[in-house]
Amino acid sequence: LSQDRIVQIERDILGKNNSYANANRVAFAQKGVLALNFVSSPGSGKTSLLVRTIADLKDKFSIAVIEGDQQTSNDAERIRATGAKALQVNTGKGCHLDAHMVGHALENLDVADNSLLFIENVGNLVCPAAFDLGEAHKVVLLSTTEGEDKPAKYPDMFAAADLMILNKSDLLPHLDFDVGACLAHALRVNPRLQTLVVSARTGEGLSSFYAWIEARAALARKG
Amino acid sequence: LSQDRIVQIERDILGKNNSYANANRVAFAQKGVLALNFVSSPGSGKTSLLVRTIADLKDKFSIAVIEGDQQTSNDAERIRATGAKALQVNTGKGCHLDAHMVGHALENLDVADNSLLFIENVGNLVCPAAFDLGEAHKVVLLSTTEGEDKPAKYPDMFAAADLMILNKSDLLPHLDFDVGACLAHALRVNPRLQTLVVSARTGEGLSSFYAWIEARAALARKG
Ligand SMILES: Nc1nc2c(ncn2[C@@H]2O[C@H](COP(=O)(O)OP(=O)(O)OP(=O)(O)O)[C@@H](O)[C@H]2O)c(=O)[nH]1
Ligand SMILES: Nc1nc2c(ncn2[C@@H]2O[C@H](COP(=O)(O)OP(=O)(O)OP(=O)(O)O)[C@@H](O)[C@H]2O)c(=O)[nH]1
Ligand SMILES: [Mg+2]
Ligand SMILES: [Mg+2]
Ligand SMILES: [Zn+2]
Ligand SMILES: [Zn+2]
Repeated sequence: LSQDRIVQIERDILGKNNSYANANRVAFAQKGVLALNFVSSPGSGKTSLLVRTIADLKDKFSIAVIEGDQQTSNDAERIRATGAKALQVNTGKGCHLDAHMVGHALENLDVADNSLLFIENVGNLVCPAAFDLGEAHKVVLLSTTEGEDKPAKYPDMFAAADLMILNKSDLLPHLDFDVGACLAHALRVNPRLQTLVVSARTGEGLSSFYAWIEARAALARKG
Repeated sequence: LSQDRIVQIERDILGKNNSYANANRVAFAQKGVLALNFVSSPGSGKTSLLVRTIADLKDKFSIAVIEGDQQTSNDAERIRATGAKALQVNTGKGCHLDAHMVGHALENLDVADNSLLFIENVGNLVCPAAFDLGEAHKVVLLSTTEGEDKPAKYPDMFAAADLMILNKSDLLPHLDFDVGACLAHALRVNPRLQTLVVSARTGEGLSSFYAWIEARAALARKG
């Protein structure tokens, strides 16, 4: 396999993914669904954030979740405990969700009109960046425990996202972490990135996140 | 591209990688070098652990480091500040080091006889699991802030490793993290996995890690 051939194969895979993603996007638009793709390193707090968000927003919205993980259905079970619908996709050796998997998940998850669809990707700060799932926005989480240079070192994900959520703000008193320096690294990679500082544990900063969601849900809603 | 064709391509890539890995392994054996491949999520503390380990072991061993990151040479610079030799490999879009990259790095990094070679992989708990670099052992780090279920959810990496280092033990008083449950998840995936609990910040537990290294360096040494 030559380098050229590998590049060609990658292009084919991404091209095919994009056509599935476009089909998903059309389906979301027809139903007025706001779909968000949550990406981060393993353990940054994606599921914790979703569990808390669902608890706080479930009286305003119908919410469904697609959970991507290599193995286990732990995360789908945590979501279901909130009362929301959740479908687990296990990727096995795979390092990211793709749009075809999401399309099949949608066949099995009855997503209501004008609802929210949260997609939690496999924990991986590299590979999910390249795969459009048809979502309105990629939301990247970073936790304060990971170090402020992550946006500079793993730039593709921060370039692909529209919103960055810096999670685990409650731990800042115990860490040597410079929030301003971290956000500056992210903005150097993506000057249009919106940024929030939150704690999924204490709830700090989440009202701004909910307002961000509500505005975009209003835009997505069917006329 | 059919699913069969993709599986075939993956097999070709891994087969090619394995032959480069075997060549690296022969070169390490001829020089009596102990090569360790450090893998984890982004920000679990690989570089912090290496910096501290080098400071503590540099009077006993000659040590060189290969640093893998998508972008920046931050980590190689942190290593060089200890006085050790370090070579940065930037993978760009790539999500892991491969044995071919390591072979080329060795051409540019003059590794001494009977020395230690630390390879820090790209922060990614999925993709580096499949790629043998010719190392004696994969060492997987997990930090206490990532949650105890990570070995169950990302099992391939814990199956591929010989040593698991649970890092950031200093933060345990501020977290809701069950160390025993975490190690049990890891042992279910890999019953032969050795486990240590350390803090790269305070140094807690590192003497066991250094003893683990010294024993394996003695085995690797030229007769
Ligand atoms: N202190 C603190 N801990 C948090 C916060 N959010 C999540 N955690 C903890 O971080 C760990 C990982 O949380 P998860 O919600 O499982 O993270 P995740 O990103 O869904 O992980 P994966 O799906 O496995 O990649 C757990 O131990 C959580 O309790 C937070 O805001 N503060
Ligand atoms: N509290 C605490 N923080 C730590 C410890 N080890 C590392 N850190 C912090 O964790 C963050 C990430 O550390 P790094 O050493 O850059 O982690 P890494 O695994 O090399 O990260 P990448 O190479 O970017 O994947 C930094 O803010 C470190 O200061 C530890 O034992 N305790
Ligand atoms: Mg999760
Ligand atoms: Mg590092
Ligand atoms: Zn299909
Ligand atoms: Zn990958």
